[in-house]
Amino acid sequence: MLDQVKALTFDVFGTVVDWRGSITREGEALARTKNIHGVDWAKFAEAWRALYQPMMQEVRSGRRPWTKLDDLHRMNLDRVLREWPDVVAGLTRLKRKYILATLSNGNVALMVNMAKRAGLPWDVILGAEIARAYKPQPEAYLRSAEFLGLRPDECMMVAAHNSDHEAANALGFHNAFVPRPTEYGPGQAKDVTPSRAWDVVAKDFGELADRLGC
Amino acid sequence: MLDQVKALTFDVFGTVVDWRGSITREGEALARTKNIHGVDWAKFAEAWRALYQPMMQEVRSGRRPWTKLDDLHRMNLDRVLREWPDVVAGLTRLKRKYILATLSNGNVALMVNMAKRAGLPWDVILGAEIARAYKPQPEAYLRSAEFLGLRPDECMMVAAHNSDHEAANALGFHNAFVPRPTEYGPGQAKDVTPSRAWDVVAKDFGELADRLGC
Repeated sequence: MLDQVKALTFDVFGTVVDWRGSITREGEALARTKNIHGVDWAKFAEAWRALYQPMMQEVRSGRRPWTKLDDLHRMNLDRVLREWPDVVAGLTRLKRKYILATLSNGNVALMVNMAKRAGLPWDVILGAEIARAYKPQPEAYLRSAEFLGLRPDECMMVAAHNSDHEAANALGFHNAFVPRPTEYGPGQAKDVTPSRAWDVVAKDFGELADRLGC
Repeated sequence: MLDQVKALTFDVFGTVVDWRGSITREGEALARTKNIHGVDWAKFAEAWRALYQPMMQEVRSGRRPWTKLDDLHRMNLDRVLREWPDVVAGLTRLKRKYILATLSNGNVALMVNMAKRAGLPWDVILGAEIARAYKPQPEAYLRSAEFLGLRPDECMMVAAHNSDHEAANALGFHNAFVPRPTEYGPGQAKDVTPSRAWDVVAKDFGELADRLGC
């Protein structure tokens, strides 16, 4: 069944890049430079991230017209975010056999700039801005597959979030769950284990490459 | 003035891949296998290519709703087309300094499959399908720049066709003309020399990398 998979579509924030650790580190470095005291940068990262979903919900619900994640972009997140350590080597192996596509809510410029900086070897940048719909709306997944000229069951979603997999799976995508047990901070309860028997569960992108025979 | 350029946007058919030579060669190989005689495959390539522009014109004029180049795709052109010999090394050098984006009328799947096969190291696939407009319509160029979060004057069009440069330049793009003097066949008259004093004129992608300091 997995033989038919031709493309891997990747969630990016949390799955490929460690937004929490990166924002915290950069905040702490900024604080040292500017002599700022008393800010809990891990909490700042969380508070900042907490604004992300509600804003997209405004768009999903139609209360706000299509808007790209400029505010994320304005924060130059692409310059700040660091990838998890297994990512570049894992992607390089996976790329030999599969089309590697981003399927993120981040906009194209953000994905491109991040990839240039971190050396992420994507074949193609897809996802929300190209599809004009934010995950978990079905169009975000379906239009990304369509741009590749592939059926959903020829695509495998790679993500650290069960909710992303649930949305993709309902449309026919295959699923590779790669948990990132510190994405939500220390003592993370959510997304540590798979919520269903996903096709592949791998501890990192290296194990994912092993499991997919790359 | 060229210091502001952050992205190179590439025409693909004729500029990156040698459609004429590739189709001719594949036709001849097919003819040998199938014992077909009497076909002039260079003329076939030309006749096939001649259908390409009129069909896109149907879309540009609005007589036909948006349609991707399925017929090209159906011919599995991506499996057939060969890149010019200077392309992979040149792109690899250019990629160190610039964002490399396709800005082709070919659809996303065609570009991705061709890139996988030929090892073309694009950072992002843009152009007609993403912009929902065929070159030389302004939207094809402008929306591609927009997806990169760049102004047109931060982009440089790389193409073997003066008409492509004229359309891009009118919108503020910079221009690198890389003539392919056999693209239209032996005795080519058109697009052998620049029609205007384009920012850069280079004989191939290696010279382009030299000229741009890569």
